[in-house]
Amino acid sequence: MKAAILAVGSELLTPLRSDTNALHLTAKLLEIGVEVVLRQTVADDRALLAASFRHALERADVVIATGGLGPTEDDLTREAAADALGLPLHRDAAYLEALKERFKRYGRPMAPVNEKQADLIEGAQLLLNPRGTAPAQIHEAAGKMLVLLPGPPFEMQPLFEAAVLPVLRERSAGAVVKTRVLRIAGLGESDVEQIVAPIYKTFQNPRTTILSAPGQVELHLVAEAKSDAEAERLIEALAAPIREALAGRVYSEDGRDLVQVVAGLLKAQQHTIALAESCTGGLLAARLTEIPGSSAYLGRAFVTYANEAKIELLGVAATLIAERGAVSEDVARAMADGAMRSARSSIGVGITGIAGPDGGSAEKPVGLVYVAIAGAAGDRVRRAQFPGERDRIRFQATQSALEMIRRGLLGLAPLS
Amino acid sequence: MKAAILAVGSELLTPLRSDTNALHLTAKLLEIGVEVVLRQTVADDRALLAASFRHALERADVVIATGGLGPTEDDLTREAAADALGLPLHRDAAYLEALKERFKRYGRPMAPVNEKQADLIEGAQLLLNPRGTAPAQIHEAAGKMLVLLPGPPFEMQPLFEAAVLPVLRERSAGAVVKTRVLRIAGLGESDVEQIVAPIYKTFQNPRTTILSAPGQVELHLVAEAKSDAEAERLIEALAAPIREALAGRVYSEDGRDLVQVVAGLLKAQQHTIALAESCTGGLLAARLTEIPGSSAYLGRAFVTYANEAKIELLGVAATLIAERGAVSEDVARAMADGAMRSARSSIGVGITGIAGPDGGSAEKPVGLVYVAIAGAAGDRVRRAQFPGERDRIRFQATQSALEMIRRGLLGLAPLS
Repeated sequence: MKAAILAVGSELLTPLRSDTNALHLTAKLLEIGVEVVLRQTVADDRALLAASFRHALERADVVIATGGLGPTEDDLTREAAADALGLPLHRDAAYLEALKERFKRYGRPMAPVNEKQADLIEGAQLLLNPRGTAPAQIHEAAGKMLVLLPGPPFEMQPLFEAAVLPVLRERSAGAVVKTRVLRIAGLGESDVEQIVAPIYKTFQNPRTTILSAPGQVELHLVAEAKSDAEAERLIEALAAPIREALAGRVYSEDGRDLVQVVAGLLKAQQHTIALAESCTGGLLAARLTEIPGSSAYLGRAFVTYANEAKIELLGVAATLIAERGAVSEDVARAMADGAMRSARSSIGVGITGIAGPDGGSAEKPVGLVYVAIAGAAGDRVRRAQFPGERDRIRFQATQSALEMIRRGLLGLAPLS
Repeated sequence: MKAAILAVGSELLTPLRSDTNALHLTAKLLEIGVEVVLRQTVADDRALLAASFRHALERADVVIATGGLGPTEDDLTREAAADALGLPLHRDAAYLEALKERFKRYGRPMAPVNEKQADLIEGAQLLLNPRGTAPAQIHEAAGKMLVLLPGPPFEMQPLFEAAVLPVLRERSAGAVVKTRVLRIAGLGESDVEQIVAPIYKTFQNPRTTILSAPGQVELHLVAEAKSDAEAERLIEALAAPIREALAGRVYSEDGRDLVQVVAGLLKAQQHTIALAESCTGGLLAARLTEIPGSSAYLGRAFVTYANEAKIELLGVAATLIAERGAVSEDVARAMADGAMRSARSSIGVGITGIAGPDGGSAEKPVGLVYVAIAGAAGDRVRRAQFPGERDRIRFQATQSALEMIRRGLLGLAPLS
């Protein structure tokens, strides 16, 4: 079974933006053994779009289009797809009503332009979009499947996974391709490579790819097999020795990121955490509260950029700051203690450093960060020198704090 | 003059790799007034490739292909392009000799498979590739130009710039294409469309595209002209009435995002700001401290998830929370006042709401957020009902706060 992906929108053909949906769809399709043979990004031009749909329909069994389902005049995907199939569009009365209701619920009048979002290709099935006003549609005829999905990834992805992927899985009876992602924090790409290459090189299936991202490294193990169970067996045969060689560094194998893993540990062990952030400016708090239900473990956090804030809110001694400097091991410790005391939490975190681009010196260069944890995850402090720009330094500092907490809660040795 | 780009290679259709040449080519083409209307990534399949070339040649004046010019069996770009044009390939004797010489120079024998790299479409011009063995070729006929370039970016880019771009510049008669992006917060896509469509529809040049993102809408104004100055004049002729119709809603025309604009205003007006965040959990602090030099305006911020934190750190009256609820206009105001008082700053912000997915009720549903600002940007409070999931609700709440501050600092009417 072969697929073509069509991303619609002139904005995706400018240097300012690019399509990210195709990559997501390619990965998901591969998992069910559907190979993408053609990807097109097409400007908002009805004739060009229709010709591109025809080209894709001639060469692939499944054509998945994203974008161009909005209410504006530029949104021409419905019209062009119908042109390519030689079918008319019908306005779906029930959906039109639902659309009007939706606007009413948010207390806004519905502009007439929105009505065309209820237009459906004759014979197509409408798929409700819980996160937006543009529904998806699937049309099947003559062994070809055409799927129209909204463009915003947060609308497209859940719709695709809930309503399209199961249908495709049923139609495609091919080989199964499974990927497991092993995530590692606190080690660089070449260090990970050094440790795991002798292991994965002895395996043909799964294939292994190492990917580096700020603050973490990922190992992608890709196995091909006749069944899910067999693919999982093949993957585990390689994952087990890798896991052992990395000695507790693999923090996730199920798609969860580090903050999800730490949030899970805090909830499971019924801990509460309080934060005092200087150079990360609230980024760790923002990450820890991204998780639904985060109020179970986080009640308060402090952003203490200014020295007076550290002194007044966290009780850091002014003399300590004067003697050791705001960016120092002792101040990081005092911040963690102060946050924990204020919140009466079981764990405290203090982060102080120089995120740059200004404020560095020979002795304390940009990228120098002290992270301290206190309380139930152990009393530990780590001095790190992070590479990169402000954004990356800040992110890596939060990763470091999270990995320190994870290791502390699991009783693993401190992060070096 | 319209262009299509065709990236060749099955490896570009896997989740692990993607084509980066297209973005580079798009930017370079735009600078000389050539608009890319179609981008295709195509698997190594001769029939599919030929059909994709035909599709591109029918819809564009220039077709630029990258990749598939190597010596292996998978390298089929030459063959497929010739198929699409209905022309034969000829082996270029002079280039074949040069190729053999090249191998000799590096002391390696030339494998016979390499010979096909000397194959040229009948009537095409060969462009020497100083960085690799695959030459480029240009074929022109019937007003259409077809360009085949090698895939590796360090081979493709210098070849394109030295040998292809000058030809295209000459053909395209020196037009310049400029884009200006107008960013708008606090209005939905269809509301913006309603207001600006009557204006931009009367303009053929610039063309206007509306793009929606969480918490903001973008208008892309793309003008084509003989010179930079003329393009700017054309853009301003449309931007001026749009700006007026949107009455202060356009917060940026120079690429800056909302947080950069607000940070700039705070610095220019020498204000300091303190934050008290509940449902946004530090996201506003993290955003405001992304900006280098943010310590000039932000000294401290509070994440007060728990009621005790609101009471103890911000001085919110326990009775107020008991009577009005933690998610209420009065508590948002008290949080803004408390943060401002603690920091002795000129501006305070309080945000309280229900980010979900849990914690909503009929009276106070998920997505309900109160944002209060206090002090030098005015005392204002806004009740908003944001659509979407936790992430989006939190982001929109921070956008709302930033837009309120911006309007306050500029003396604009409050956000409705």
